[in-house]
Parts: sequence; structure tokens; C-alpha cells
Amino acid sequence: MKISARNILKGKVVQVIPGAVNSEIDIALDSGDKIVAIVTEGSVHSLGLAAGKAVIVLIKASSVLVMTDSSGVKLSARNVLSGKISKVSNGPISSEVSITLPGGSEIHATITHDAVDEIHLKEGQPASAVFKASSVILGVPT
Amino acid sequence: MKISARNILKGKVVQVIPGAVNSEIDIALDSGDKIVAIVTEGSVHSLGLAAGKAVIVLIKASSVLVMTDSSGVKLSARNVLSGKISKVSNGPISSEVSITLPGGSEIHATITHDAVDEIHLKEGQPASAVFKASSVILGVPT
Amino acid sequence: MKISARNILKGKVVQVIPGAVNSEIDIALDSGDKIVAIVTEGSVHSLGLAAGKAVIVLIKASSVLVMTDSSGVKLSARNVLSGKISKVSNGPISSEVSITLPGGSEIHATITHDAVDEIHLKEGQPASAVFKASSVILGVPT
Repeated sequence: MKISARNILKGKVVQVIPGAVNSEIDIALDSGDKIVAIVTEGSVHSLGLAAGKAVIVLIKASSVLVMTDSSGVKLSARNVLSGKISKVSNGPISSEVSITLPGGSEIHATITHDAVDEIHLKEGQPASAVFKASSVILGVPT
Repeated sequence: MKISARNILKGKVVQVIPGAVNSEIDIALDSGDKIVAIVTEGSVHSLGLAAGKAVIVLIKASSVLVMTDSSGVKLSARNVLSGKISKVSNGPISSEVSITLPGGSEIHATITHDAVDEIHLKEGQPASAVFKASSVILGVPT
Repeated sequence: MKISARNILKGKVVQVIPGAVNSEIDIALDSGDKIVAIVTEGSVHSLGLAAGKAVIVLIKASSVLVMTDSSGVKLSARNVLSGKISKVSNGPISSEVSITLPGGSEIHATITHDAVDEIHLKEGQPASAVFKASSVILGVPT
């Protein structure tokens, strides 16, 4: 597979919570982190998603927020991966921020350049990649 | 909290419509505007979302569309905040458009530079920020 | 209507699969391609979505992934439109990739410049636009 998703992680399905239209898929990454994905019930069937199934987790960089301080607020976003900022690349409007997770894998986020300035993001700083369960695309090996 | 979401608004939960996997949260902003959010049922419980609860509404700039003329079409996107374009910043590929709402708060959208040219966006023009209920992240003070 | 969504396609509703909070809408594009959308049940009612209804499909360029090789993996993303890359425009951080579909219409994706380099995207190459059902906004003529 060759696809433009900047974030591709490996894991296993822990649990499938079915709904009429959407289902929640709880995933344990090989790194030990947990991921929650929302996919359509149609995809659950076509991909054969069930507990124990090996999956690939894809997250587009534009779906990822960068959080450096979570004090005082609890968020509805189900996915929070914590690590350290390893790179900040600035363009005139957009910036790409890379966060290295404890296991060594990297998560990339594209955010606005203004956001980088406002929350003073810099390399070496502890930070979390935050994304909604509905931003996750799942893949299964065929 | 320090997070890269460019749009952070305050409000109160009006109603929670529960589903098996996702729930709809209807919110009244302090500015008087209404917001609809879709979050997982898991978040409804962990955040204690219920009518009357104070919430923070976060929307990533990349989730926001800019509409200058709604005539002839009705959209499924549940969130439409109307104001006036206060700033257009162009990069080679991306542009950031800021819309000032009647109450004074600003909404930021990142769209393509080509879209700015095609629909002739300019400062001072009336425009609406349009985003899906599923693009909203909610936060609650802890 | 004037809106910043870079991708606007015409089609007809084939089927509505209702849920408590979200509904799945299956659409046949005028080009023959199929699209799956997830919208809130509230929108199904306010737009009068039902089999046979003419709809406009809007997809923000930032929601679209570009895939050039699908071998070895099956994805949960319900929407895959295949064509040929007609243009790649690179900025320092973001790139815009245009894919021309067999029927002649174009799909635009904004992805990171790094992704363009990593999967070696170039004009003339066969590629698919991939996006989640939850990234689709529907419009109906009024």
C-alpha cells in the first residue's frame, strides 16, 4: 500500500462496540498505546473487524491537534498520544509538527503557523497528539 | 490548557441525544449561537455531559469551510456561524481566513488558496464558517 | 451557493440507513461512482433525504487522502474514487494534488509535501482519492 496518510501505526482490535450505523473499535497499538476508532458498520463487516484482528491505523496529519498542557480541561477526543516534539517545520500558513512517542514512532500533525506561535511550540518540548475517534481510518492486511 | 485548536468557544449543553456509539450534543454558545457536536457515548460519560453543563467547543481550522452565498442549496453541515471576513492570509497552497462574529469572537478557517481565488474572498465581506457536528471536540473544566 | 469546498459532485440518493444519531446515505454520482456519507439524523429530516433525491456532495480537500497502490491492505474508508493525477502543486508544508476521474471531473486533495515525496506522486500516475463517509457534507437544491 502507498497512501498519503502521514501516520500509520500497527495494532490489534481489543473490542468492537456495534451501533446501527457506526461502530466503535478499541485498538491496542504494538507500542502499548490505546486507540479508539469510529468506522461504519459496513466497514466492520467488509474488513472482518473483531477482537484479536491485526489492523493498521491511519490518521491524516491534518486531523491531529497538538496539546502541550492539559491542565484544567478534559477533552472529548478519545485519542491522546504523548511524547516529545522532535521537529517543527514552518510554512507561511501551515506548520508540520512531529511528536516522537516513547516507543520511537513518530506522529505528524499539520496545524496553523499561528497556532505554533501562540502556544510556543518548540523542539524537545513534551506534547500530545490529540485526535478524534472519527478521524481514524483502519486497514487490514489482505 | 494549551492546544493547537485555532477555534475555542465557550457555551453550555442544552440537550444530549444519546445513541449506541455516538451521541449528539446541542450547545448554546455564550455569544448566543448554537453548535451541534457529535462525540462518542464514552466521552458523554467520562466528561459528564448533560443539560446545563459548561463546555468548551474546539474546532480545528482545517475542518471549517467558508461560505459567502448560501442561495439555492441547503447543507447537511449542522454548524453555520455568520459574520464578516476580517483577514485573509495567503500562502502558496493554503490560506487562512478569519471571520469575526457579531459578538466579537473570531473563527479561523484554513482552506486552499485556489478556493480563496475561486469564490473571490476578501476582507470586509459577509461570510459564514461552516463545519460538521463530527468536527467538534468538547472540553469540560476540571 | 459559493463555498470553499474544493470538491463538489452531483448525484442521487440510493438508500438511507437510519440510526439514532447518525444516518448512512448511499449516493450514486452522475459519473457512475458511488459515495457513502454519514450525516446526522437531524440533517436527514431537515434536508428531506430519501431514495431518489438529487444531492450535491461536498468534500473539503483536507479530508482527502491520495493512494497509488492498494495492494496488501483493505481500508475502512468507504469512498475511493480512482483516476489519474493531473496536477501536483507543492508549497513548503502543504501540497495540492488533483486527480482527474474517468468522467472528466477533478478531485482535489491537500496533503503534506513530505507525503508527496515519500510516495513519489507525479502527474500522469494512476491514483485514488480516499475519504471517510463522515467527511462528506451533503447539499440539496432549494
